[in-house]
Amino acid sequence: MTDKHITLALDGTGGDNANAKSMAAAVRFAIVLHPDLKILVFGSQKLKDALDREKMDKDRYEFYSAPECIAQDEDPRKVLEGYRNSAMRKAIEAVADGKASVAISSGGTGPLVVLSRHILGVLPDMRPALCARIPGGKDKFSFMLDLGANAVCNAKDLHSFARLGHAAYKSIYNENSPRVSILNVGTERNKGNAVVRGARDLIEQDKMLNAYGFVEGDRLFTSDADVIVTEGFTGNVALKAAEGVAKLFLDRSGIKGVFSKLARPDWLIPWQYNGSVLLGVQGLVIKGHGSAGADAVGVALHEAYNYASMNLINSIKKELNI
Amino acid sequence: MTDKHITLALDGTGGDNANAKSMAAAVRFAIVLHPDLKILVFGSQKLKDALDREKMDKDRYEFYSAPECIAQDEDPRKVLEGYRNSAMRKAIEAVADGKASVAISSGGTGPLVVLSRHILGVLPDMRPALCARIPGGKDKFSFMLDLGANAVCNAKDLHSFARLGHAAYKSIYNENSPRVSILNVGTERNKGNAVVRGARDLIEQDKMLNAYGFVEGDRLFTSDADVIVTEGFTGNVALKAAEGVAKLFLDRSGIKGVFSKLARPDWLIPWQYNGSVLLGVQGLVIKGHGSAGADAVGVALHEAYNYASMNLINSIKKELNI
Repeated sequence: MTDKHITLALDGTGGDNANAKSMAAAVRFAIVLHPDLKILVFGSQKLKDALDREKMDKDRYEFYSAPECIAQDEDPRKVLEGYRNSAMRKAIEAVADGKASVAISSGGTGPLVVLSRHILGVLPDMRPALCARIPGGKDKFSFMLDLGANAVCNAKDLHSFARLGHAAYKSIYNENSPRVSILNVGTERNKGNAVVRGARDLIEQDKMLNAYGFVEGDRLFTSDADVIVTEGFTGNVALKAAEGVAKLFLDRSGIKGVFSKLARPDWLIPWQYNGSVLLGVQGLVIKGHGSAGADAVGVALHEAYNYASMNLINSIKKELNI
Repeated sequence: MTDKHITLALDGTGGDNANAKSMAAAVRFAIVLHPDLKILVFGSQKLKDALDREKMDKDRYEFYSAPECIAQDEDPRKVLEGYRNSAMRKAIEAVADGKASVAISSGGTGPLVVLSRHILGVLPDMRPALCARIPGGKDKFSFMLDLGANAVCNAKDLHSFARLGHAAYKSIYNENSPRVSILNVGTERNKGNAVVRGARDLIEQDKMLNAYGFVEGDRLFTSDADVIVTEGFTGNVALKAAEGVAKLFLDRSGIKGVFSKLARPDWLIPWQYNGSVLLGVQGLVIKGHGSAGADAVGVALHEAYNYASMNLINSIKKELNI
């Protein structure tokens, strides 16, 4: 292990398939990939046992007992007032206390956003949003946000998402002037509702942004834009609809499964993109897919490591003049 | 030709690929399938020439010159006041005048909805919505609405969509008590925004409906529900996102294209489901996909024929006690 290392805080309880074994396998995967990585793992005794069985080097991870689980749709007030010993809260607190650079959780979006806003604080004038890295062809990526951090959004919120997505995309992909589009029901200027048309005006007036008009749902995975902004409800539903269809094509059985493997566009396989960043808070938080398996959690940890290594939060602040 | 025949009115101008040749091929396809079908075709001289070249029996179709085209995002007032000689208006007027049972158009959603509401009138207490037939497995279908007839929807609108979708599904599929779900970001009761939670309450209180909770975007094509209601903006984006991904898997080239054909779930191929019904107006109007080719327009004409044969509009009115 090198002297300078990256520390991540993993909520080991969240997620539909968050069984201890696949969480432990993901931890092993991540520390094998990155020799200077250390992971603080928060979870139940079952998870501790699974980690022990992996027989990893003890100075590569630390286990903390935090067995409380927060239900997906728990009341925000109860999330804030209770659950002092939940793995999700502990992981975010580790970031707030400077003990880890990124918190990773596959728990519910609602609790994760409420706790992150409360514990880490919100960047001035920003509306936090979940930002996914979506594929736009082989080795091409777009950022899409919000994916459900906000139940209702106005035009100003979408402008905030545009600024956050622009700053993150620029920092991560060294693209000087990322093209920012708004998801809409058509590409013509008069299409859509007041929210998207208002956001279009705000983004066009913002000289820091490269406004790139509207994009339709069938052009999400075609690199038509670098940053795609949308209100959280629609973004969540659209991305899940896309994943659902991809799975129907990928999960073929028997001989069709063999042909499917030979035919598939590998860059579209959903688990490869697990891990959405919660942009707009004063710290790095990554949300994994609720049904993430070991591979998918491994990918989220790998992305978290990359974002921590490049000090993404500072780059974003610099880009936003904060 | 039998004595009792079905007459359809086809707007031959709309659609991205609405070239005359594929429109004419679709007309031939439909009248070959249905010996008692007659089609009134509205369009340009170019379309007339293409129809002539198909050398179809002259008493199976009638051509009417209506060369005006309405832009996708034309101002609603201008749509209503002008375009007296547009094929879209003429086709809807043919339904209002009792000359045809269904109007079919692949033109813009905005103009089509505005003209249909104005010329045909709205069913009492109903909010018109575009309803798609989406696949839920081999020979299984769900109805999904709205897909963009409304830019903004409230809980009461979603309840109206539920009633319309229920009535149509029951009429078409002889299913006594179709399961009605609401598209949401999660299945738990507290998930989502005020609109979907309000709609859930209204639908649960409606004794005519079989309320079936929330459904997520990745379960659109799995027959989890028979009727899926959503506000128009999200519905449009989600369905296009699904279509976009399906196309990426289907449109493989070279040897991968061969394997793709062997592997694909045939029931997911998008063109097979072309044709959304505009429910909630006093007449049958079907909107085809903007990029529909000859096969897809043929499917829309075939569906239109079926709905006219069963007198869908009367069944819906009866079901709604109108």
